[in-house]
Amino acid sequence: MTVPKTMNANFPMDEQGHVHHVGVRAGQVSNLILTVGDPARLNRIASLLDAEPKPFENTSSRGFTVVTGRYQGVEVSLVAIGMGIAMVDFFVREIRAVVSGDITIIRFGSCGSLDPTLRVGSIGVPERAVQISTNYAHWHAKKGEEVPGYLVSPPITADAELQAHLFSTLSTSVSSPTCEVRSLPLHASADTFYSSQGRLDPNFQDDNTNLLDSLLARYPDCASLEDRWKQPTYSTSPPSPTHLQPPPPRPRRG
Amino acid sequence: MTVPKTMNANFPMDEQGHVHHVGVRAGQVSNLILTVGDPARLNRIASLLDAEPKPFENTSSRGFTVVTGRYQGVEVSLVAIGMGIAMVDFFVREIRAVVSGDITIIRFGSCGSLDPTLRVGSIGVPERAVQISTNYAHWHAKKGEEVPGYLVSPPITADAELQAHLFSTLSTSVSSPTCEVRSLPLHASADTFYSSQGRLDPNFQDDNTNLLDSLLARYPDCASLEDRWKQPTYSTSPPSPTHLQPPPPRPRRG
Repeated sequence: MTVPKTMNANFPMDEQGHVHHVGVRAGQVSNLILTVGDPARLNRIASLLDAEPKPFENTSSRGFTVVTGRYQGVEVSLVAIGMGIAMVDFFVREIRAVVSGDITIIRFGSCGSLDPTLRVGSIGVPERAVQISTNYAHWHAKKGEEVPGYLVSPPITADAELQAHLFSTLSTSVSSPTCEVRSLPLHASADTFYSSQGRLDPNFQDDNTNLLDSLLARYPDCASLEDRWKQPTYSTSPPSPTHLQPPPPRPRRG
Repeated sequence: MTVPKTMNANFPMDEQGHVHHVGVRAGQVSNLILTVGDPARLNRIASLLDAEPKPFENTSSRGFTVVTGRYQGVEVSLVAIGMGIAMVDFFVREIRAVVSGDITIIRFGSCGSLDPTLRVGSIGVPERAVQISTNYAHWHAKKGEEVPGYLVSPPITADAELQAHLFSTLSTSVSSPTCEVRSLPLHASADTFYSSQGRLDPNFQDDNTNLLDSLLARYPDCASLEDRWKQPTYSTSPPSPTHLQPPPPRPRRG
């Protein structure tokens, strides 16, 4: 592959063909990808890979870790992508640029339950997901003008075949009395952890008190929210703002 | 400060009072903060701190690096926050929870110029900024319905006193024949690097061909775009998609 020495602003790569942010090039990433947020979780999963051939590992300066190896002989890549939409976008775009053919991506992570029957320790495999985004225009609305503080996208459908296969496989191999595997009709993701997931923070004007209620009114089948747990802290009254207590006098270092 | 042992879902901290993602607690962060994206840039700046007292350093598992030390005797924190809106939000929220009193934050980074008179090597100090966000509803519009692919927020104003002080100080201390320091009327930020900054990627349906033109039509004073450079690759015709050439056969590892 001829890669221009000059930076292409539309798709920057270095002279060896490494994509700019994820830091890998063709031949270093498999078509089968399991992705997580936290590198510590990636390392736990990577410990299950075959010892031989020795897995390829790379951590980029921009916060992506890629491990490519074999699991029971099948080539697979594990990718830790950190947090946030921008990181997901970097990951998908740049992996697409260095892998040819179809790509299978499974995102493995923790999230909160909005369905009281879906208990801690369960595994959900969502069929669809909505995106909750901050609506910056809300904080600039003219007097009397009603502009919602958050936008909820239409549901986006996961690959049906992959979803069914994942649910079926997990049901057979992982399900236990303390771990229910359930196919979830709808999952919600969010652009920020605090305001867009309905957390109440008296330090900031978020106008998010009714966010989860309005989400559930619109989508009663929304079963999970990344990375939010509804019980026991989400209630009609704000939590005690323990983090707002003044800290002790700050010691001078040295 | 009493920190509950149980997780507070609204504002998770560990038993020692470390905020969950940035990984620091009260006493470890200054009220004066310079923040960057890339940890490598942070390390270059941190090398300018006073050797004594030895700076505090911490890198969290979620991709944040905090260095707190003194620069010519004045306490300051340097924070590398990685990439994306979610990371900015984690940083501001969690720092607010462990620092008392007013906080001064300056974000130092690279970005592209949308103003042909603002040349490579210049330093811009924006007075205001808009946010370009993906409008997911666009890709679900009904036939005949016009839903824009991107939302541009109303301009948000920087702290005027801090902006003027920063511009004035940089003008006096850094300005040179190859480095113009300029106060910029408007900067644009974006939720993703590729689509929301007007990059053309034939692998994805982005509907962003006219994004920069419509941004400049609406805000002719928009001088910079994070992290996009208009010249020489932004033109009326798409660039050659060099990254779409098929890669060479993938070597089997091991």
